[in-house]
Amino acid sequence: MRTLFTAEMSELADDLIAMGRHVETAINRANEALLTANVELAQSVIADDAKLDDIEETVDERCVLLIAQQQPVGLDLRTIISALRISAALERMGDLAQHIAEAARRAYPESAIPAAQHEIFERFAAAAAETATAVRSLMETRDLNAAAEIVSDDDNLDRLHAEAYQSLLDPQFEGSNQEVLDIALMARFYERFGDHAVGISRRIVYLVTGDHTGEQARI
Amino acid sequence: MRTLFTAEMSELADDLIAMGRHVETAINRANEALLTANVELAQSVIADDAKLDDIEETVDERCVLLIAQQQPVGLDLRTIISALRISAALERMGDLAQHIAEAARRAYPESAIPAAQHEIFERFAAAAAETATAVRSLMETRDLNAAAEIVSDDDNLDRLHAEAYQSLLDPQFEGSNQEVLDIALMARFYERFGDHAVGISRRIVYLVTGDHTGEQARI
Repeated sequence: MRTLFTAEMSELADDLIAMGRHVETAINRANEALLTANVELAQSVIADDAKLDDIEETVDERCVLLIAQQQPVGLDLRTIISALRISAALERMGDLAQHIAEAARRAYPESAIPAAQHEIFERFAAAAAETATAVRSLMETRDLNAAAEIVSDDDNLDRLHAEAYQSLLDPQFEGSNQEVLDIALMARFYERFGDHAVGISRRIVYLVTGDHTGEQARI
Repeated sequence: MRTLFTAEMSELADDLIAMGRHVETAINRANEALLTANVELAQSVIADDAKLDDIEETVDERCVLLIAQQQPVGLDLRTIISALRISAALERMGDLAQHIAEAARRAYPESAIPAAQHEIFERFAAAAAETATAVRSLMETRDLNAAAEIVSDDDNLDRLHAEAYQSLLDPQFEGSNQEVLDIALMARFYERFGDHAVGISRRIVYLVTGDHTGEQARI
């Protein structure tokens, strides 16, 4: 019974890692679609999001069955409950990558980003890509250095978010209202991407170390 | 044992209803703070959000203990898992009300909404208030008419969201970039408020009817 349980917990971890890889691919493609106005790439992110939703559904079902059949307690139970929260957060991160891809597709053949904002979105893209890699790596290795990286990337995304809003309010800014709208929303999508990653990392840190203090910020 | 379990499940339901009432109060105050530039009301929404976070934490802890101690299966287990998802969604709805209040506070003593957009935000406010009342009522009564109301309000919020964006892109629109930013973000906060309500209502409909078909859209 215990061996079966261990195998099932391992499958659950594999599903979450698969979701993490999916999110990593999605954000990398969405970033490139946005920065290079590549509509095929944008399209692939949008089309692939349904796969992430499917894995989330599998994870949810697996968690309910694991609890019902194995009646876990203690750390095992908390791990399963955390898996439910983590899968929901990864699904939202995929949605946010999809929203970025949708903005790139809507603006095509133009770029969704005015030339003056290109550099700030290169930094958004780099920080979000690092975040996604760190989330996937944290789930694969449980190496807590990845958790510190996620928090630092999130600080970076928060600063970029403030900087992007500031750039819109600068009297020098000459974009159209459509550009203000796109920049405001995409800055927010990147900022929320970082928030969800921090939520995931706090749950994993808690499972690894038992330290509950960082777990206040909810996914 | 069963009596104790029933009592604990009933406390869990009461906590969710308390969260629903809190969200209803928060969105009503945030709406009025926004429409009347009332900074004290905005401040009260922002200050009270911590209470909602506390109840969410209680709900989470109660769910974990209920599963560990009572080892529920079947519908009982699914109800508890749903409670976890519903509490997360209610907490996010509270955050969104808080974000609306923050925009009102930031703009004070001015209004965050230009006169030309006032009417559209009156309609946003009315639809969001109806949504919150229907969510609270659905949790209290399990009356599925409230679920239909939530879906209809969400359609309304989606249309208003599109209408608000369209108004920003209208060549007639003469607002500042700060106004474009505020309107774009607030329209999105209201639209997401409706999405979370639909997620909650699908989970409750599923628990009441056993019908899983509407449950695809995740919270």
